[in-house]
Amino acid sequence: MRALVYEGPRSIQIKNVPDAKIEQPTDVLVRVTATNICGSDLHMYEGRTDMEPGRVLGHENLGEVVEVGKAVQQIKVGDWVCLPFNISCGCCRNCEVGQTSACLTLNPGHAGAAYGYADMGPYEGGQAELLRVPHADFNCLKLPRAAQENQNDYVMLADVFPTGYHATELANVQPGESVVVYGAGPVGLMAAYSSVIRGAAQVMIVDRLRDRLALAEKMGVIPIDDSKVSPVEAVLNMTDGQGADKGCECVGYHAHDPRGREHNNMTLNNLIQSVRATGMIGVVGVYAPQDPKSTNVLAKQGQAAIDWGALWGKGLRVGTGQTNVKNYNRRLCNLIEAGKATPSFIVSHELPLEDGPEAYKHFDSREEGWTKVVLKPAR
Amino acid sequence: MRALVYEGPRSIQIKNVPDAKIEQPTDVLVRVTATNICGSDLHMYEGRTDMEPGRVLGHENLGEVVEVGKAVQQIKVGDWVCLPFNISCGCCRNCEVGQTSACLTLNPGHAGAAYGYADMGPYEGGQAELLRVPHADFNCLKLPRAAQENQNDYVMLADVFPTGYHATELANVQPGESVVVYGAGPVGLMAAYSSVIRGAAQVMIVDRLRDRLALAEKMGVIPIDDSKVSPVEAVLNMTDGQGADKGCECVGYHAHDPRGREHNNMTLNNLIQSVRATGMIGVVGVYAPQDPKSTNVLAKQGQAAIDWGALWGKGLRVGTGQTNVKNYNRRLCNLIEAGKATPSFIVSHELPLEDGPEAYKHFDSREEGWTKVVLKPAR
Amino acid sequence: MRALVYEGPRSIQIKNVPDAKIEQPTDVLVRVTATNICGSDLHMYEGRTDMEPGRVLGHENLGEVVEVGKAVQQIKVGDWVCLPFNISCGCCRNCEVGQTSACLTLNPGHAGAAYGYADMGPYEGGQAELLRVPHADFNCLKLPRAAQENQNDYVMLADVFPTGYHATELANVQPGESVVVYGAGPVGLMAAYSSVIRGAAQVMIVDRLRDRLALAEKMGVIPIDDSKVSPVEAVLNMTDGQGADKGCECVGYHAHDPRGREHNNMTLNNLIQSVRATGMIGVVGVYAPQDPKSTNVLAKQGQAAIDWGALWGKGLRVGTGQTNVKNYNRRLCNLIEAGKATPSFIVSHELPLEDGPEAYKHFDSREEGWTKVVLKPAR
Amino acid sequence: MRALVYEGPRSIQIKNVPDAKIEQPTDVLVRVTATNICGSDLHMYEGRTDMEPGRVLGHENLGEVVEVGKAVQQIKVGDWVCLPFNISCGCCRNCEVGQTSACLTLNPGHAGAAYGYADMGPYEGGQAELLRVPHADFNCLKLPRAAQENQNDYVMLADVFPTGYHATELANVQPGESVVVYGAGPVGLMAAYSSVIRGAAQVMIVDRLRDRLALAEKMGVIPIDDSKVSPVEAVLNMTDGQGADKGCECVGYHAHDPRGREHNNMTLNNLIQSVRATGMIGVVGVYAPQDPKSTNVLAKQGQAAIDWGALWGKGLRVGTGQTNVKNYNRRLCNLIEAGKATPSFIVSHELPLEDGPEAYKHFDSREEGWTKVVLKPAR
Repeated sequence: MRALVYEGPRSIQIKNVPDAKIEQPTDVLVRVTATNICGSDLHMYEGRTDMEPGRVLGHENLGEVVEVGKAVQQIKVGDWVCLPFNISCGCCRNCEVGQTSACLTLNPGHAGAAYGYADMGPYEGGQAELLRVPHADFNCLKLPRAAQENQNDYVMLADVFPTGYHATELANVQPGESVVVYGAGPVGLMAAYSSVIRGAAQVMIVDRLRDRLALAEKMGVIPIDDSKVSPVEAVLNMTDGQGADKGCECVGYHAHDPRGREHNNMTLNNLIQSVRATGMIGVVGVYAPQDPKSTNVLAKQGQAAIDWGALWGKGLRVGTGQTNVKNYNRRLCNLIEAGKATPSFIVSHELPLEDGPEAYKHFDSREEGWTKVVLKPAR
Repeated sequence: MRALVYEGPRSIQIKNVPDAKIEQPTDVLVRVTATNICGSDLHMYEGRTDMEPGRVLGHENLGEVVEVGKAVQQIKVGDWVCLPFNISCGCCRNCEVGQTSACLTLNPGHAGAAYGYADMGPYEGGQAELLRVPHADFNCLKLPRAAQENQNDYVMLADVFPTGYHATELANVQPGESVVVYGAGPVGLMAAYSSVIRGAAQVMIVDRLRDRLALAEKMGVIPIDDSKVSPVEAVLNMTDGQGADKGCECVGYHAHDPRGREHNNMTLNNLIQSVRATGMIGVVGVYAPQDPKSTNVLAKQGQAAIDWGALWGKGLRVGTGQTNVKNYNRRLCNLIEAGKATPSFIVSHELPLEDGPEAYKHFDSREEGWTKVVLKPAR
Repeated sequence: MRALVYEGPRSIQIKNVPDAKIEQPTDVLVRVTATNICGSDLHMYEGRTDMEPGRVLGHENLGEVVEVGKAVQQIKVGDWVCLPFNISCGCCRNCEVGQTSACLTLNPGHAGAAYGYADMGPYEGGQAELLRVPHADFNCLKLPRAAQENQNDYVMLADVFPTGYHATELANVQPGESVVVYGAGPVGLMAAYSSVIRGAAQVMIVDRLRDRLALAEKMGVIPIDDSKVSPVEAVLNMTDGQGADKGCECVGYHAHDPRGREHNNMTLNNLIQSVRATGMIGVVGVYAPQDPKSTNVLAKQGQAAIDWGALWGKGLRVGTGQTNVKNYNRRLCNLIEAGKATPSFIVSHELPLEDGPEAYKHFDSREEGWTKVVLKPAR
Repeated sequence: MRALVYEGPRSIQIKNVPDAKIEQPTDVLVRVTATNICGSDLHMYEGRTDMEPGRVLGHENLGEVVEVGKAVQQIKVGDWVCLPFNISCGCCRNCEVGQTSACLTLNPGHAGAAYGYADMGPYEGGQAELLRVPHADFNCLKLPRAAQENQNDYVMLADVFPTGYHATELANVQPGESVVVYGAGPVGLMAAYSSVIRGAAQVMIVDRLRDRLALAEKMGVIPIDDSKVSPVEAVLNMTDGQGADKGCECVGYHAHDPRGREHNNMTLNNLIQSVRATGMIGVVGVYAPQDPKSTNVLAKQGQAAIDWGALWGKGLRVGTGQTNVKNYNRRLCNLIEAGKATPSFIVSHELPLEDGPEAYKHFDSREEGWTKVVLKPAR
């Protein structure tokens, strides 16, 4: 089959690789019809992880089931499914309480597995024609028929929509509250969108890319351009000097200031100042346990200089980590089906798999207009 | 009246000061019969805050009501009451949702007020014969009659018991879980005790003072002496290598290693390593927004070098800040009254007010055997 | 002052009564500029309660503060305020945990007090020129300046909006869920509206008055006319035969079938059948502890024949009772101020106080088009 | 194999039946070493359900794995396991959110499946030498080695301990609260025990069998003999006339008064009177959707005459239904392993399988001293 293969830093190639296939009786095989490039793919692309050359990327996948293992009971050939990027067994101590992002059995020695991802198990990604899905009864979200016509909405259920939503859940965003989101990339836009869906009264988003801020503004979110104003001051000014009720971190450890310098603590400390005493912060931007290629001494070893005194003095609560997609994907799917959510508004490019290498290049350079790329592998 | 007055770093004196009195129609006046020295008093005692000389310390107070303001409706002369260390109005946006530690009206410009405390408003402390209690209907916990005979238990409801309990609430300790508490001072002991009360299956506590570890062991808590073993390894060994389900930070920014060197991030990073993926951490040890007298560059400005990559990778949730005493004091009082909690087990010394200056000296030096001092001002 | 006075069954008169005035130092006096007639006023109007003749009705009140008691600290003359229909002290065991609908001190011997309401204390209602507001710092919601121009939205914060919202909170309505609301009166419309605000994917409402169903349909809610179809079957058909995720009861004990016969268990048993196993139901329709004038033997003594076997078999959870207005009014106010909620859409009539008696007559007969009446007492 | 077979009302026989065996690749086969008789078995025994003659009873099972299906990944031959009485797939919409008592796939057309139980699917019970366990990776709780020596504690994890615990979870029992439990059968005793474990300050239990009340008293629970006093008055007297904070229903639809007459609403209405305004009630006693053999007209059709007016007036919240064993069994197992819970204290008889028919007879007659029977099938 044709697949996008990681060859090394900033090198992704289209190649022929052996077909994905059923390996366990609980697997199914999916013909991938939509697969996104994710911001976190860029960490691997840029060579800042220990991703092995030769692996297939892609953890935001949707497609049609073409073969089922002998022990699969709920999923049938012909079902259209969207696959949570976390692969989980459904049976371990973490999975059984909904903590599927920390599955204990599928990536022994670590908590959590994923498709085509550094340090998250041997599972190949879906930027390819076929994808093997382990523990299919547990991992497949069966889609309504209409999903075929509307794949760009439903494919967002694999990661980016539940990830943005998770930020708002960790921050416990309630109807009538104010929320500030740092980062207007796809995840940040989904966090702001989720805040709107949850009935927030006031949603603010901080970034400096005009196209992204414009997308946010279209849904009633207040854009704050941090290349022009202090985002903390802007938020305080709009919240009677108190700060927003809740905050979402959607940037991660490669946060950089408007002049392009990386500060892994920048958005975190801005959030601590931007959120009011008693508030909550959801952190879904990725932070790595070490970052040897960083130039910052603390960052190299996975540390960040946090304004802990201010955080504690305000009595803030902070939730972190990868989303548990399965906690949210069914309800978010209902919203799409009911026409009440159309997360495809972030899609800037829909391209054949063959254009993947080029797409990575543009997306990695944060080029104006390259918000979100959906690849279409299936012929 | 006689009172303990802060005169400057490491100088506390017994002095005659003007009697406390009713200032607002919603005040009551309390004859203080029991008032504790708190570990956080030591930050002021040591001169590491901007506490003003001439002020009366003491925020853990219990006594008898001797006069009531004209607008007071529920509290009567002769009532025995315990006063939450947080003073709160009961009416602001924070108080009305139970966030009394962040009252917006009693210390304008800051969130939260307290008796006899740096930066927490003009309210005098209770290490004195009389105490003025603002918003008395809201702030007084009326005690059962038996409390008079048993003041050392009930006075713990002012701060240390609800503070320890708050750590377990922020960490959402559930029956059957494992918990690790860093710090076996009075607050840490109360966090461990609260974990036991909540039905934890396994409670571990880390410290190096033998008398404190012994107190913990008596209630079925596993002591870990960090001057002899790595506390992280000890916890991992006792939890199948996974880490405890939940963690409590009860030390704060002056955490020091067994050799006496301060590291404001030490217990936090140990907790991140000691708690399993998906876990929660409650931080009730005090962290200040700046600490000019620290020798550490980050600490000076209130920052700590946190293992944020590890924290995020494990998907931990962290709650912080001062307890909201009123959320817990009524239920904890019920436990004392029913004979199911006797927090006075931490009391090492019960002394007249006059011995206060001496008591501060011993307590400040973390002398073996000086766990908790109750002063008895009333004659 | 001029006031609407309850004289006996189906007799409400405009009369001159002594001016309301400050009675306690914690009171304020409000010039009432908007006051609603509530569906629950009709129980009193119809003589099915033990309301005393001579009392002033009206518990949904908004106006301007014209005098403040000496112990009032936050509220000033000239403030515009909306008053929660529950009057609460802010200091008792129930108020301090947000259960203001069950205040233990303002109506001794009962839990809960209200303005102008049978069995809820001696407090006069606001269908008058002036209103005495006890414990004003706690009970007044201070409104933004713009509220004066937009009183029909803000007056809904006194009761009907938080009551509808409470149904969705008791049912824990989550984004992406399906909800069925029984009753499209003002409260039912607000429950449906709250479900929409909370991001429900599918909201259904059951009633038979066309104008009310039409109002629901305008906001994207699916109307079900129970004079034409079985509402249970309709809901099951729209939810794959499983039932809605959540349900709201917004009718109460005088529920009647399309032919006009009362069945106090009708909507409850319909809900049990309409909600899926594991679901939750919020019941905010009023049920009285006895109803001597009912013709039904069980109903007379406040009992209802509930399908308890079905309820239990499905593992349903049911929350009941009056809303705690203060839990929600601040956040719902934010939504109005931000232009994201306009609950005035239910207002059918805005009338001078003098038209009150006539308005009661029309509203009581459930006349087509009389959805919600706002009276304007102040000259 | 030898098994206890239901032959018809009040007729249970030991018989030879075909060996249980692996039927699906996700099954395991367990050699049953401990299996309890449950109070709910008596509904079947007495012929008040539509249980089919010829079926094997027994849904509280523990034993050793002797064979595993080909798709089983976590469970091995030789593992000691306790089986939740609810059988669940782990993959459906309900299971994935922890609502395993309402599994949608294992008993099509109903929510929920169980071993050897009327209307809960074709699964045979464990009162036999061998038991087939479907979806074994999900359904088996792997026990610590020590469990073999201590089976009477661990077998309680199959049903009765998590069921009692569920009552306290539905009622959200908090440390320091007061709780009243109706029914001191095995489930009621476990609800009281769970309340103690959760740190309740005051636990009361209502029954009339002296041996059961004595067991309760031994763990510090206050016994109330409803053949001697009004239980409602007793509870009110012990709670300042307010009622208990929380209540647990552990009797079910065959509740009978001290004179032996059945009233399916008796314990429910007593609870409504015994619990204070704002309280919560957990109902785990069984209620059937119909009860044709009842002599009460409402009860026949599964209805109960509930004091709904009083319930609503107090703003009570009620949770109902079968426990989701998997939500609790792992944490309760930890408590047993740590020596902090010994639920075997309810065991009155440990008997070979052959004595099962006789044991049913005694247990069904509520004979003094027959609290809980553990059968030991394996040779």
